[in-house]
Amino acid sequence: MPINIKHTAQMLPYKSLIQIDRASSIPLYIQICNYFISLITDGTLQPSEMLPSTRNLALLIGVDRNTIKLAYEELISQGWTESIERKGVYVLSSLPVLTQKKTHNVKNKEIKHDAFIWTNKFSHSILSKNFQKPQLAIDDGFPDVRLAPIDELMREYRSISRKFYGRNFLKYGNAKGSEHLRESLCKYLSTTRGLNVEVDDMLITKGSQMGIYLSAQLLLEQGDLIAVGVSNYSTADEIFKQTGAKLLRIPVDEYGMDPDYLEQALKKKKIKAVYLVPHHHSPTTVTLSMERRLKFLKLAKENKFAIIEDDYDFDFHYTNKPFLPLASIDHNENVIYLGSITKTFAPALRIGFMTGPSDFIHSATALRELIDRQGDTILEEAFALLFNQGEMNRYYRKALKIYKQRRDMFCELLKVHFSNEIEFKVPEGGLAVWSVFDHNIDLIKLAENTLKKGLYIDNGLFYKNELFSTNGLRLGFASLDEKEMAEAVSILKKTIR
Amino acid sequence: MPINIKHTAQMLPYKSLIQIDRASSIPLYIQICNYFISLITDGTLQPSEMLPSTRNLALLIGVDRNTIKLAYEELISQGWTESIERKGVYVLSSLPVLTQKKTHNVKNKEIKHDAFIWTNKFSHSILSKNFQKPQLAIDDGFPDVRLAPIDELMREYRSISRKFYGRNFLKYGNAKGSEHLRESLCKYLSTTRGLNVEVDDMLITKGSQMGIYLSAQLLLEQGDLIAVGVSNYSTADEIFKQTGAKLLRIPVDEYGMDPDYLEQALKKKKIKAVYLVPHHHSPTTVTLSMERRLKFLKLAKENKFAIIEDDYDFDFHYTNKPFLPLASIDHNENVIYLGSITKTFAPALRIGFMTGPSDFIHSATALRELIDRQGDTILEEAFALLFNQGEMNRYYRKALKIYKQRRDMFCELLKVHFSNEIEFKVPEGGLAVWSVFDHNIDLIKLAENTLKKGLYIDNGLFYKNELFSTNGLRLGFASLDEKEMAEAVSILKKTIR
Repeated sequence: MPINIKHTAQMLPYKSLIQIDRASSIPLYIQICNYFISLITDGTLQPSEMLPSTRNLALLIGVDRNTIKLAYEELISQGWTESIERKGVYVLSSLPVLTQKKTHNVKNKEIKHDAFIWTNKFSHSILSKNFQKPQLAIDDGFPDVRLAPIDELMREYRSISRKFYGRNFLKYGNAKGSEHLRESLCKYLSTTRGLNVEVDDMLITKGSQMGIYLSAQLLLEQGDLIAVGVSNYSTADEIFKQTGAKLLRIPVDEYGMDPDYLEQALKKKKIKAVYLVPHHHSPTTVTLSMERRLKFLKLAKENKFAIIEDDYDFDFHYTNKPFLPLASIDHNENVIYLGSITKTFAPALRIGFMTGPSDFIHSATALRELIDRQGDTILEEAFALLFNQGEMNRYYRKALKIYKQRRDMFCELLKVHFSNEIEFKVPEGGLAVWSVFDHNIDLIKLAENTLKKGLYIDNGLFYKNELFSTNGLRLGFASLDEKEMAEAVSILKKTIR
Repeated sequence: MPINIKHTAQMLPYKSLIQIDRASSIPLYIQICNYFISLITDGTLQPSEMLPSTRNLALLIGVDRNTIKLAYEELISQGWTESIERKGVYVLSSLPVLTQKKTHNVKNKEIKHDAFIWTNKFSHSILSKNFQKPQLAIDDGFPDVRLAPIDELMREYRSISRKFYGRNFLKYGNAKGSEHLRESLCKYLSTTRGLNVEVDDMLITKGSQMGIYLSAQLLLEQGDLIAVGVSNYSTADEIFKQTGAKLLRIPVDEYGMDPDYLEQALKKKKIKAVYLVPHHHSPTTVTLSMERRLKFLKLAKENKFAIIEDDYDFDFHYTNKPFLPLASIDHNENVIYLGSITKTFAPALRIGFMTGPSDFIHSATALRELIDRQGDTILEEAFALLFNQGEMNRYYRKALKIYKQRRDMFCELLKVHFSNEIEFKVPEGGLAVWSVFDHNIDLIKLAENTLKKGLYIDNGLFYKNELFSTNGLRLGFASLDEKEMAEAVSILKKTIR
């Protein structure tokens, strides 16, 4: 098949264009092949142009002729060039002419991308912080990963994968997650909080956060209204807002979010859902009173809205017993109940769960399947074993005791050293103290200055929103042992002076 | 504080209402407490009603009086009841009256939930199948988990978590994923396909599927148009459709999707993106020719649309070298490039990656952060080690060789045994053979019948859509060893007869 052949008046300066690297692990012929591809794609070599003969190129760039031959064969097999007998190798005539490579440096982050457009909903800066560096930190209220039975978990994790039946857990599984873990969690929820759900109505998620995301995607559309606290977990706010929904902010006092305020608002507005953290409101750590729990349930039934109950903090409650979740009282008709193993065990092991009305959990599973198909089954199976062996219960009991001691010690330190600077109430549960700083203390500067002295604390911006500007911080005590706590408080004290 | 006290004319039949279970692991007083809570919440016990005296109840239900006292204290501390001195224990007068519990059985899946509403977009049945049962199966083209260096991975996984520095990887980390794994992947992409990206422009996802989901959420809005193949990976279709976007279906032939058809369509319509699988189109396994790759890039530049390049199958290509991805040619201006470790290693270990323009990856990270915060850092770190030790390369080479043998053997078996029933081409790569069955063969019945004989095969519905109704199946050969393959083919043959 004859093609139109262009004769290049002058050969290209291949000696400088092709800079091979003999130290590289990439074979020479692939390096040469890749140079030609980039010459073709940037328009230097046009369709129908001839490549130099293998002999000439070999001499020019100083490699064996057979290497050039291999490179040319590679180019042909990849569909860039064709060989015409007794003539030579030519750039495929049918290749479309690409525009010249843009001259701007794509590494330069200053240059705005303009090749295609996408939503600007997510142009905000990344919210989350990296705590994986070895650094003294007062965090937002995370568990101490050193207390969790990680070794036991990892032993099971490895052991399952080595077993004959375990290998099956490496294949695609149920989008709802490991059946064993769902069974264990159902038992655990029944024993600890009288919440009786069917295994089929349980969906294992990646942390309770995925539960918030799934609920938001299913419940909310552009212009819908969702009720949240005047102060609220900011990430939840972001999740709701990205659906196009608007937030109706409800006052929060020492008994939690105020359902009477919501009741008044419901006379004028329809809402799709309420988001609440019953133990313990984020960021202020207050527990929603039983009376208010029932009132929210009553309003939900009357007004047919959903309650997204994010009970990630149930397991760490120090005063009396924790209250029954709304989900346990409601027999699961109006409540989507979210829980977390991540937040009680180790933040980077992403396991949470959600339960609620059967149809809703079905829809949530169908969406979850589109997002990431399923979880890591072996990790889920390993957690199921830990529950069944009683290891999780032992861990929760042990951790609760230690966290209570740390809470008491931390609150004592705050009282002794910061009586003029920090106002707080001893939290009934959870892993952080909501600390309101004197208005003369600039938290952004404080965070910068403690960091210089080796202590990370948050700068408080995460907790603020358009209606909530209290000069406060969650000071997480749980991940600090006695020595670290003393050191952290000492740095904080020196910095505040 | 005096309250209004109702006197119940007659005592409730507590003996039958409270059925304690002495074999249960739940303490008796908690059981009794929970019975009272359910009597209160279902309206049997109204606000201000009196509970029986501890002495009476103890006699009635046959437990120690101290147990009843404990139960009553629990009820009081949980805010359900209050104790009035020298009178007794009363249901809190300020509790709102809840409506009677619905009498329908909430376990009955037939009854439609009507307490609140949500989108019906996800009422479809769950797409994905569970392959975790020990069952002979011809799957969609999944890797053989027995070949992957799982032991090595698990050893690293466990070992990292035990090390002092490793414990830090259990804390919250970078939403983009482990920096080490991103570095390893950048190196791997550069060596294997000349794709040079910055570590910051790399986002670790949960399988390549999360990359499709994130791209869809960022690029598509209600009414937008995205181009996909006439035949296409159905899950991707679902992901795009749930954004409200419409699909523009492009013909697919032996060279892949046809850009000329798209070019014509672009004269009348605007599209936001093209989704393509360059190696090897799903489901038909064809490789997109280099000429067409360049044409798609040209169209993308001219029309400012994005190309979502799902290259999950790059690593398994048997004929010559795989072609360069579009992303490598485009210098990353128009292309969002997705890859998978999941699909080459083990389906239940959810690791994939996406790269593309910096700003886009930033947006994708911000969204990913809302969905599930981050991945499992220790698993990511373990994979980074496997890449850096050369273990992944060894594995890919070994697997490629074995899969080529399996492909050849499987195609030979198909040719010998099903020459009249199945039409197929030997695939150049990937882990499945696109098999078109004689139109007299009902694939739904066939799947039912082979299952009765102990072999799972798909019923073909997954591959069909409104424009594509070929009587075909992807027959995955990679996860079957020689013996299993022979057995599977034998069952298939007996069933087709």
